[in-house]
Amino acid sequence: MPVNIPPLLPEQLLPVKGLSLGITTAAIKQLKRKDLLVMVLDNTTKISAVFTKNKFCAAPVLVAKKHLEDSKLAVRALVINTGNANAGTGDEGIEHAHTTCSELARILNCQAQQVLPFSTGVIMEPLPIDKIITGLPAAVANLREDNWFAASQAIMTTDIVPKALSKQINIQGKQVTISGISKGSGMIHPNMATMLGFVATDACVSKILLDKIIRSATEDSFNCITVDGDTSTNDAFVLMATGCADHDEISNQDSIEFKQLQLAISEVAVELAKMIVRDGEGASKFITVKVEAGKTKDECAKVAYAISHSPLVKTAFFASDPNLGRILAAIGYADIEDLDVNAVQLYLDDLLVAEHGGRAKTYTEAAGQQIMQQSEIMVRVVLNRGQASKTVWTCDFSYDYVKINADYRT
Amino acid sequence: MPVNIPPLLPEQLLPVKGLSLGITTAAIKQLKRKDLLVMVLDNTTKISAVFTKNKFCAAPVLVAKKHLEDSKLAVRALVINTGNANAGTGDEGIEHAHTTCSELARILNCQAQQVLPFSTGVIMEPLPIDKIITGLPAAVANLREDNWFAASQAIMTTDIVPKALSKQINIQGKQVTISGISKGSGMIHPNMATMLGFVATDACVSKILLDKIIRSATEDSFNCITVDGDTSTNDAFVLMATGCADHDEISNQDSIEFKQLQLAISEVAVELAKMIVRDGEGASKFITVKVEAGKTKDECAKVAYAISHSPLVKTAFFASDPNLGRILAAIGYADIEDLDVNAVQLYLDDLLVAEHGGRAKTYTEAAGQQIMQQSEIMVRVVLNRGQASKTVWTCDFSYDYVKINADYRT
Repeated sequence: MPVNIPPLLPEQLLPVKGLSLGITTAAIKQLKRKDLLVMVLDNTTKISAVFTKNKFCAAPVLVAKKHLEDSKLAVRALVINTGNANAGTGDEGIEHAHTTCSELARILNCQAQQVLPFSTGVIMEPLPIDKIITGLPAAVANLREDNWFAASQAIMTTDIVPKALSKQINIQGKQVTISGISKGSGMIHPNMATMLGFVATDACVSKILLDKIIRSATEDSFNCITVDGDTSTNDAFVLMATGCADHDEISNQDSIEFKQLQLAISEVAVELAKMIVRDGEGASKFITVKVEAGKTKDECAKVAYAISHSPLVKTAFFASDPNLGRILAAIGYADIEDLDVNAVQLYLDDLLVAEHGGRAKTYTEAAGQQIMQQSEIMVRVVLNRGQASKTVWTCDFSYDYVKINADYRT
Repeated sequence: MPVNIPPLLPEQLLPVKGLSLGITTAAIKQLKRKDLLVMVLDNTTKISAVFTKNKFCAAPVLVAKKHLEDSKLAVRALVINTGNANAGTGDEGIEHAHTTCSELARILNCQAQQVLPFSTGVIMEPLPIDKIITGLPAAVANLREDNWFAASQAIMTTDIVPKALSKQINIQGKQVTISGISKGSGMIHPNMATMLGFVATDACVSKILLDKIIRSATEDSFNCITVDGDTSTNDAFVLMATGCADHDEISNQDSIEFKQLQLAISEVAVELAKMIVRDGEGASKFITVKVEAGKTKDECAKVAYAISHSPLVKTAFFASDPNLGRILAAIGYADIEDLDVNAVQLYLDDLLVAEHGGRAKTYTEAAGQQIMQQSEIMVRVVLNRGQASKTVWTCDFSYDYVKINADYRT
């Protein structure tokens, strides 16, 4: 079961003015599951997106990027299917992504270039385009502003729980809403190759500043999480600002309003990202890996990911076994130039585990054991050679990870 | 159970003239297990070794490297313990490694610098040096040239089966013997951070050529295997040539004799390395990943390791599920510059699975399924952009991997 995610209640999710969501069951992979989501945007909407860096990226990623780059027209709709990734599907996959866009455009009476397609699910199987075409009118028929809860369910694959969040802030005396949904839960890895995340706000903000916000929000959230180190073919994070809240456009990056909005959107993105790790495939623990006092952020990240990806470390967390030498081993192979291992300190929460190249004199197995049994654990590595730091969130590696991934298609 | 390793019979292992082996039960971690091995070498022996690149490398690695570099005297003995890695043990660990050497040197009447120490087992726990000191006389007392089988057992940790091999060749009409032992079976990764391997021959060969042989043999064997991507703190491969076979010293690298010896030692190293993968923790399948027609060997290796390390790919193999899109995804995130995914071909054994960016027209799920059920499978990726290639051997990822590593210290 997911680690410490409180149950999501539909009433916690707030509508975003200017954006409506329609959901249907298109029976793409399973007969009775919501698997097709349409989001329709007011024509005042600004949009920014970041995509997977996987070279075998999916057809919808290629098409969505192209539509964002080429079109002079505002994006009017997103269409998201689960159950099939439309990745590793060659020219036919591209055609299917185009058809999906043009069919939805026809129904909504806009251009195909104004539609962005997204897919998630099994790779290298043909997208059942007929089912999607059949499903689109039904999804459009139930478009509603208060459909966020159903939308969060409609994008799930191996996720156990839906992931969504709303937040409100006050800008110039006006209420501004931010709502977002995300899905994991395997193939979670940094560099925006992580998952699907959609965050919308009714704030009014310039495109340039929206692009700035998505970059910093991604860096702090989806680029800090890892479940298994696999970088997906499909994943994307989309940020939409409908501009329907009744305040002046935010166009100055030094303004209080910009900072307010940036912070609030980052907070939503961070929560959505953490929920993905908490619901990582087979996760039973939520692990924060913080690497401090490195020369560069990059070297801190190398150490943090070496620890976060190590199957040996992850199985030790699963077993609540303070076999913490495995963490030292991971630090040691992270390939940091001239690392003086004698200067490195390793903490579990506030417990000093290792220093001077070995176990700390004050460390006891009993104290380590106690922390390892918690469902939330902080691994802190102090490199003692600079000012940079990096935090990564990950989960443990359990029987269930193997089970889920061995059984995925059955 | 290990994948297709025939049972090892003591009589298959041949003595190497000039080298004797003594084993005892020192009760380092378990009460009744052989866990201490001493190898004693004639003073004519040449020796070469390669060690882990892990920055947190173990105390015995530091000491063995120093003894090899500093000493003008011939190495006379190796001492190997299992049950404790003496890694992440700080200054005390170094002291214990020194004490181990000086104690054995005292018994053998040589210098401490003539002894190389090796350890394997749990990290960051103090080496029980008293048990080792107590065990050494017993190990020395049963030194015998025909003790290879017991030696292969004495270095096991989570290994299910002992790994050993002998081979004989004829040089200048004289019989030359090569015998070797190795141990895995987690933390198996390339760059000589893999395991313990000891190969000895009675051939007479110059030190320069022995160094050449160890480099090429390592590159073809231990640097081609991976179980979980974790790079250990302790691992080492040692090649010893006692010079006791009655032929002229091999000192010309263009000679037939050199090539014979190099080939034979490489063959032994490759078999020992493959055995480690076949007995990888929880392994149920032996997978060969061959990446061909790349621009450089390095980029082929990147692709091969991305595939070999992907938990998603490895669990699909465990499940015999031809969810082969996961292999495309791994190729895609291997970070190869300007990779044209449409030029990439993916084969499972001789079955063409993907080309032109998607599933091959001739591919059928039934054909893929059939191959996935085999215990030995070849994944072949043709990048179609150059002449280089790289082969990596790995295994699948099973419930048992998690179980073994979750339970390791209990």
